[in-house]
Amino acid sequence: VRMRFFEQLDELRGLLVVCAASVTSAIRWANESMSTGDVEIAARVLTVADEVRESRTRAQEMIEQLLVRQQPVASDLRLALAGLHLASDLERMGALAAHIAKIVVLRHPLWMVPPEAAPSLHRMGEIAERLAWTVARVLEVGDSEAAGRLDRDDDEMDILHRDMFAVLFSDWPHGVKVAVDMALIGRFYERYADHAVSAGQQVVYLVTGQTPTG
Amino acid sequence: VRMRFFEQLDELRGLLVVCAASVTSAIRWANESMSTGDVEIAARVLTVADEVRESRTRAQEMIEQLLVRQQPVASDLRLALAGLHLASDLERMGALAAHIAKIVVLRHPLWMVPPEAAPSLHRMGEIAERLAWTVARVLEVGDSEAAGRLDRDDDEMDILHRDMFAVLFSDWPHGVKVAVDMALIGRFYERYADHAVSAGQQVVYLVTGQTPTG
Repeated sequence: VRMRFFEQLDELRGLLVVCAASVTSAIRWANESMSTGDVEIAARVLTVADEVRESRTRAQEMIEQLLVRQQPVASDLRLALAGLHLASDLERMGALAAHIAKIVVLRHPLWMVPPEAAPSLHRMGEIAERLAWTVARVLEVGDSEAAGRLDRDDDEMDILHRDMFAVLFSDWPHGVKVAVDMALIGRFYERYADHAVSAGQQVVYLVTGQTPTG
Repeated sequence: VRMRFFEQLDELRGLLVVCAASVTSAIRWANESMSTGDVEIAARVLTVADEVRESRTRAQEMIEQLLVRQQPVASDLRLALAGLHLASDLERMGALAAHIAKIVVLRHPLWMVPPEAAPSLHRMGEIAERLAWTVARVLEVGDSEAAGRLDRDDDEMDILHRDMFAVLFSDWPHGVKVAVDMALIGRFYERYADHAVSAGQQVVYLVTGQTPTG
């Protein structure tokens, strides 16, 4: 019975690996559409976010079935619950990438990132993508060392998020609408990073069975 | 064994009832601090949000223990997982109320809601509080009819959220900083409502064993 449990857990892991890769692509395309104003790339982000939402539902169903049929022992159960949390974090990451892309679509063809905000936003985008990539990598190849980077990246994201407000609140010449867009995008990146860190913790647990100490 | 399962589920329900009442108070106080600029009331929101976060951790532990020890049947398992989702939604509701209160604290003693934004924001606050109250009531007294109201309130919230942006984006005379604050508070109310609707679905399931049809 436990053998079968691990097979099913592996199948679930396969699904989650695909999701983690998808939310990495989603944020990369969100970044690209933000930089270039390309609405076709933005549309791709929305499609991927929908797919990740469906995969989350599928993962939940798999986990429920797995728990009901297999009468798991405590450690297996915790793995299954970690999978549930991870699926939820990945779904939110997809949704947040989509929120960024939607703003680009909404403002098309007038979208542009003002030069005052561009350095912070681009750096936030880079960090978000790296966080997602790290989560995907740890999950796929079990390289749990890489997870140590997550907290540092999240700290930098928080600093950039504060910097963004400082830029918006001092002599901002681009008006209220653009400022609100920048503030919301900053918020979405910051939330994306929070969910990536949480996803990373679940992934480390799935890969090592250990609660991360960092 | 199933008798014991229901006892433990009842204990869990007690904890979640307290959490639901707490997030209702949290949003009421967040509304009040927003209207009055009262930072002591805002500080209360932060305290309650911390308590709800701790309760969520406790609820998770209870659910894990319950699942491991009781070898639940499928329907019991789904109840336990619904409890897990509910605890997570309630935690986010507490955190979002705290985000609103934090803005009031951050701007003190200069905080004020401009007259152009006040009607929408106050109405959003009322709806958020009613949503939370409804979730708490359905959970406490099993009045699942009341849950029918949740979707309508959420729809009104979405309209108000859009109205808020319309106000901010047309001849807004109060500058970028206040506009960004209003946009973020609008977003926090809207997210609060989303989590309340999700919490309501879990609560209906916990109370009736039925997935709500909306």
